[in-house]
Amino acid sequence: MSVGIGIAGAGTVGGALLRRLVTDRAVVTARTGLDLEVRLVAVRDADKARPHQIPSRLITTDVMDLVTDDSIDLVVEVMGGLEPAGTLVLAALQAGKPVVTANKELIAARAPQLFAAAAASGVPLLFEAAVGGGIPIIRPLTETLAGEQVSRVMGIVNGTTNFILSAMTEQGWSYGDALAEAQRLGYAEPDPSADVSGADAAAKAAILAGLAFGVWVDPARVYREGIDRLGVADLAAAKRLGYVLKLLAVAERTPSGVLARVHPAMIPADHPLAAIRGATNAIFISGHAVGDLLFAGPGAGGDPTATAVLGDVIDAARELLSGSSVAPRIAFGLGEIASFDEVPTRWCLRLEVQDSPGVLARIAAVFGDAGVSLRSVWQDGRGDRATLIVVTHLAPEGSQRRALAGLEALDVVAEVAAAIRVEGDDS
Amino acid sequence: MSVGIGIAGAGTVGGALLRRLVTDRAVVTARTGLDLEVRLVAVRDADKARPHQIPSRLITTDVMDLVTDDSIDLVVEVMGGLEPAGTLVLAALQAGKPVVTANKELIAARAPQLFAAAAASGVPLLFEAAVGGGIPIIRPLTETLAGEQVSRVMGIVNGTTNFILSAMTEQGWSYGDALAEAQRLGYAEPDPSADVSGADAAAKAAILAGLAFGVWVDPARVYREGIDRLGVADLAAAKRLGYVLKLLAVAERTPSGVLARVHPAMIPADHPLAAIRGATNAIFISGHAVGDLLFAGPGAGGDPTATAVLGDVIDAARELLSGSSVAPRIAFGLGEIASFDEVPTRWCLRLEVQDSPGVLARIAAVFGDAGVSLRSVWQDGRGDRATLIVVTHLAPEGSQRRALAGLEALDVVAEVAAAIRVEGDDS
Repeated sequence: MSVGIGIAGAGTVGGALLRRLVTDRAVVTARTGLDLEVRLVAVRDADKARPHQIPSRLITTDVMDLVTDDSIDLVVEVMGGLEPAGTLVLAALQAGKPVVTANKELIAARAPQLFAAAAASGVPLLFEAAVGGGIPIIRPLTETLAGEQVSRVMGIVNGTTNFILSAMTEQGWSYGDALAEAQRLGYAEPDPSADVSGADAAAKAAILAGLAFGVWVDPARVYREGIDRLGVADLAAAKRLGYVLKLLAVAERTPSGVLARVHPAMIPADHPLAAIRGATNAIFISGHAVGDLLFAGPGAGGDPTATAVLGDVIDAARELLSGSSVAPRIAFGLGEIASFDEVPTRWCLRLEVQDSPGVLARIAAVFGDAGVSLRSVWQDGRGDRATLIVVTHLAPEGSQRRALAGLEALDVVAEVAAAIRVEGDDS
Repeated sequence: MSVGIGIAGAGTVGGALLRRLVTDRAVVTARTGLDLEVRLVAVRDADKARPHQIPSRLITTDVMDLVTDDSIDLVVEVMGGLEPAGTLVLAALQAGKPVVTANKELIAARAPQLFAAAAASGVPLLFEAAVGGGIPIIRPLTETLAGEQVSRVMGIVNGTTNFILSAMTEQGWSYGDALAEAQRLGYAEPDPSADVSGADAAAKAAILAGLAFGVWVDPARVYREGIDRLGVADLAAAKRLGYVLKLLAVAERTPSGVLARVHPAMIPADHPLAAIRGATNAIFISGHAVGDLLFAGPGAGGDPTATAVLGDVIDAARELLSGSSVAPRIAFGLGEIASFDEVPTRWCLRLEVQDSPGVLARIAAVFGDAGVSLRSVWQDGRGDRATLIVVTHLAPEGSQRRALAGLEALDVVAEVAAAIRVEGDDS
């Protein structure tokens, strides 16, 4: 019995998926025993030239045809963006059709509504490709680790920014040069803001929090800093301290609730995430019993992402054919969201200071007053000005910020040139 | 509705599992909504003192009670070994009870029979813990990558040997000293032969071949070399060439069939597997569309392994409660097993030779006659004797062995001191 597939979107991922499901259909059938038949492809512009030619009888420009057409058993949404993707996915689920999506923005923003609709209809809503592209992460987190108390998920989930930071670290390039190279190679969009601002990573951090802790974090509540203010001096400071600079997405369980955050972070050079270079993505999971797990692979790209989508399609098709309606394993419920102020962080600060007697004592007093103790202080330069590189011990984020505000108000501190959190360093 | 669990084995893994299912039962229930109740624990010796005290009413010394007792809905086998584990698992499946096992030896040796029994009864046989301990690998390979054409799986799947090789590399220890330290720390058994001979890794290689390619490889047909003949000079040669020495389990699809093999291998120092140190395990998957994926984490130990077992128990319990009988996704079928002789390999040889004019020409002629071309030759030492370190290009394994036999017969070659394959180097 064949399963009728409707695909919304024929861009990079949709094109790669069509190649697998149409051109290589026999391969998939041989591997899985399933006859997956693409019956409709919804596109914005029916006449647009595409690398993968779609037979015109399959094309529609109305995505809602995937819901109303009875020959479509299963809907694949790879168009991206909140709308019309959101309306399509919700309507398909309400109509009792399983949905596979690669849309991190949609899942992050509307998970409670969409999973409720899936549960009400007893059909799966699968989204392996939404985080980490081709890296299997959702099944491991929700199935293999179903009985594990995960404490923290830390990931490099944006290939564009990791490419830029790797190029700055390895080639000594400026941020601007590294971004230009990323754009030239197609790793960065002409408008790179969604990547470099951390917005893309924030949606993924929200999804990871939901998967690991079952608590929905509105992406608007994910703390977020991008990489666009990082410079060569920050990378040099990281190197000198034995760290590597990465844009991290962190989802963690704290005594006061779940927290998701995205920001540049210094991690020890021997941490498994430090070795993740270029556009590769990686997710590092820490659990009470299982310890530390690392998953790494291609985080984007048409072919790897299509592999993840196809895995979900096969899973959903098997469930359809078995006639069983398995209770959804994933619930993005409501739960306490922690205040970042209360969560312990460790900071590395670069301070431009007057080099005169008593300066260090005054700076140390500001940290002490804020309740932050220092792990190390390095001084560079002599004469009128000096650079201090300070690494703190763990202290609540709110205390760290009070110290930062105190330093900025201090007359002997000419500039707080950088304030970057340190992660993965438990020494 | 509670699910009745019967556990065979209360050793390291069984004890950790009991702690999770008995002491921390409320935690698992809160996380999953499932009420999992341990109703029987089969042990060899009812009176043995155990770190985790088992209520005596739960204890039986007859494993077959888990099959015959109607209060047991689901059987967990964590006793290890072929028998009586094999008889128990088969009987449980035939009685229509889902089985979760951590037993790599059993799955590798009897997969066709056991999966046929599972399919006939329509119940799952799950074994996430059998390969890579706490690392989720089976669901990613069989579900997320269901539509992917995997070409090769390469893993560090034995923590004992990786600990020994890491200690030899990092501390400069001899094989004997590193083994003694592994035994002192509990990473190696008093009789380490199953680990150092590669037999443990061979069972896992056979399972990986089945998962990746759907073809059962009898573990007796897995090509196998252990680490017990490696010495400090081999590690030094690896380092000099920019390689790291690892015991690799390889499962690959070749034009003439599927091959599984376990042997020491030199891998480039910047390969993701080279960074896997100590008792950590890692599995590296290469697929046509998805590219390269890495999974790393704790490959053994009671708590991590119990996490993997618990994930399977939760999965099987959900399926039981949903009343659905999902067709097993895993089939270890019959298929062509490749002859290793035809598979391309690359070798690094260390030769003790007479240092006289014309020696290199005669050695090169042996390689040439066997159809093996050379990538690099290094010479160490002068005088009567010299050491040559030769790295070949890829050539069929059979040709490499012909070259090796030719070298051993050559009068100017005093000794072939080492012949180690090179993997993961496509340059």
